[in-house]
Amino acid sequence: MKELDSGKIHLNLEEVKPLAEQALMRTGCNQENAGAVAECIYQAEQHGTHSHGLFRMPGYLASLASGKVNGRASPKLATPKPSLLAVDGDGGYAPLAHRTLAKPLAELAKSQGVAMAALTNTFHFAALWQEVEMLANEGVVALACTAFKPALPPAGGKDPLYGTNPVAFSWPRKGGEPCTFDQASSVMARGEVMIAAREGHALPDGAGIDSDGNPTNDPEKVLKGALLPFGGYKGASIAMMVELLAASLIGEQLSFEAAAQDNNDGGPPRGGEFILALDPAHGLASSEGLFAKMLEQEGARLPGDGRRAKRDGIAKNGIQIPAELYSKITG
Amino acid sequence: MKELDSGKIHLNLEEVKPLAEQALMRTGCNQENAGAVAECIYQAEQHGTHSHGLFRMPGYLASLASGKVNGRASPKLATPKPSLLAVDGDGGYAPLAHRTLAKPLAELAKSQGVAMAALTNTFHFAALWQEVEMLANEGVVALACTAFKPALPPAGGKDPLYGTNPVAFSWPRKGGEPCTFDQASSVMARGEVMIAAREGHALPDGAGIDSDGNPTNDPEKVLKGALLPFGGYKGASIAMMVELLAASLIGEQLSFEAAAQDNNDGGPPRGGEFILALDPAHGLASSEGLFAKMLEQEGARLPGDGRRAKRDGIAKNGIQIPAELYSKITG
Repeated sequence: MKELDSGKIHLNLEEVKPLAEQALMRTGCNQENAGAVAECIYQAEQHGTHSHGLFRMPGYLASLASGKVNGRASPKLATPKPSLLAVDGDGGYAPLAHRTLAKPLAELAKSQGVAMAALTNTFHFAALWQEVEMLANEGVVALACTAFKPALPPAGGKDPLYGTNPVAFSWPRKGGEPCTFDQASSVMARGEVMIAAREGHALPDGAGIDSDGNPTNDPEKVLKGALLPFGGYKGASIAMMVELLAASLIGEQLSFEAAAQDNNDGGPPRGGEFILALDPAHGLASSEGLFAKMLEQEGARLPGDGRRAKRDGIAKNGIQIPAELYSKITG
Repeated sequence: MKELDSGKIHLNLEEVKPLAEQALMRTGCNQENAGAVAECIYQAEQHGTHSHGLFRMPGYLASLASGKVNGRASPKLATPKPSLLAVDGDGGYAPLAHRTLAKPLAELAKSQGVAMAALTNTFHFAALWQEVEMLANEGVVALACTAFKPALPPAGGKDPLYGTNPVAFSWPRKGGEPCTFDQASSVMARGEVMIAAREGHALPDGAGIDSDGNPTNDPEKVLKGALLPFGGYKGASIAMMVELLAASLIGEQLSFEAAAQDNNDGGPPRGGEFILALDPAHGLASSEGLFAKMLEQEGARLPGDGRRAKRDGIAKNGIQIPAELYSKITG
């Protein structure tokens, strides 16, 4: 840790995990839960996805301090139907549940052909790409989605109803890291808009509307109004599907229900996650053929590779966070 | 049938199915295969989705005449793993396979929690919404996707690699028709671009590029160049996922492989389809709550309702098709 002339705090990458872990344990997490969340934050910072890194720590800490989240959660698994893994998050953060369900879900998918995890009673505040990659690293194809609080209007409407509702997908590769995308159903992720608001940057056209439904580039106004789905009504369809899968299908709260029940302490609301795992029974030759064709085109790259390309620089140079954020984490 | 002063042909809706069915049987389909395809064409015309209606008949007939498609296909089902229904389309059009797999797949999803159908060795030229609605009408949630021939470039590239790769999703409703979307991964469906080309209409901005990678509004140039994915790189991610699920996962041809193997008779190439069915174990109260919230907003409507709203007018007024198309169908 070093305070810079800019007022920002410089951290070496290896300082990130202990910093997060200690703060979480000091605020009520046991080692297991703190370690799982801190590992997610570390991986986010390692890959340059800062919106899901230390920037989330004040929200994690606030939701522990308010008593909303169980820092000593012990996720429970059950198989009410042969291909359905029901995961009760025990009121804790999602990362420990993901680490508990990954191997059993992958094994189930391999034996059944396809399996799904219905993760309920959990608090999800992390980046989904890590969760689907964990499954791809177990040798299965994975798709995951989760709702949150209303941020996006339905097609034709102007008031927030759906969460930003990310969908992540990961496909295992031969002798390499999985091909993974993780994308919000909005033009921009809420975390990115929050960072733009914090840093005073304007948003690109089309990213959001104010509370009267008018287009605006002001991140503060968008946070009070609504983000817009990517690709117009087609992105709205996907956001709707995520609500239905990650709430109605698995028996958890829809985004608007989660918001009504939440204590607004700055952390995530209680919610659920739909996770699908598929056995790549026909092997990986076909997919490698597709990836090769993609990379033949000048300018094209595989989803996930942009994020990974940042790792070396970040490992070497470390990261910088605002001093105020650092103080909130160290307490 | 009535020839209009405009030179177009007017058909009553009830004339559509026999017209299609007779043409298919005359060109090599048995009753069962012809009936299944003709029913799809009828439903497309009934709902105003003309791009998948009689407009497709010349392609169906050409691919029968060339001997590419088996008009007497008898789809075969197997369950190589407990939740995996492998469907061999026997070299025929997809609609008969869909009618063969719908009930067994729905039953499997209900008993297993989740089930998938891997449909291979088939020729898909129909609208996906019908297939997922068939499953929703059996009481399960359904997601389906299929590849085709290259039309969309990967993110960052300019040459077609992915098909327009539609994704369809349907959710059963209490006492009503399912909530269903069916959307190409491109801004526009290829069928819509073909109709614009036929009728001489310009495409909206952002729909496609010419063969040099430059934006164009000319549908003829886009058909020789590339369509663009909806929502930029996010739509491209979805198109990539469809290739991986509807080809690599199930053991069928990728779009570029299908194009290389196809005889270009105007019909669809051989391909596969990924179909997922999910048991809505927690019932439909939550989803009805979401739909009610959507409809509270002025201007919002449920996916699928716009299409259904056209039915009464079409049932009353019939449809019009170009005389040249009618001649091609009647032979």
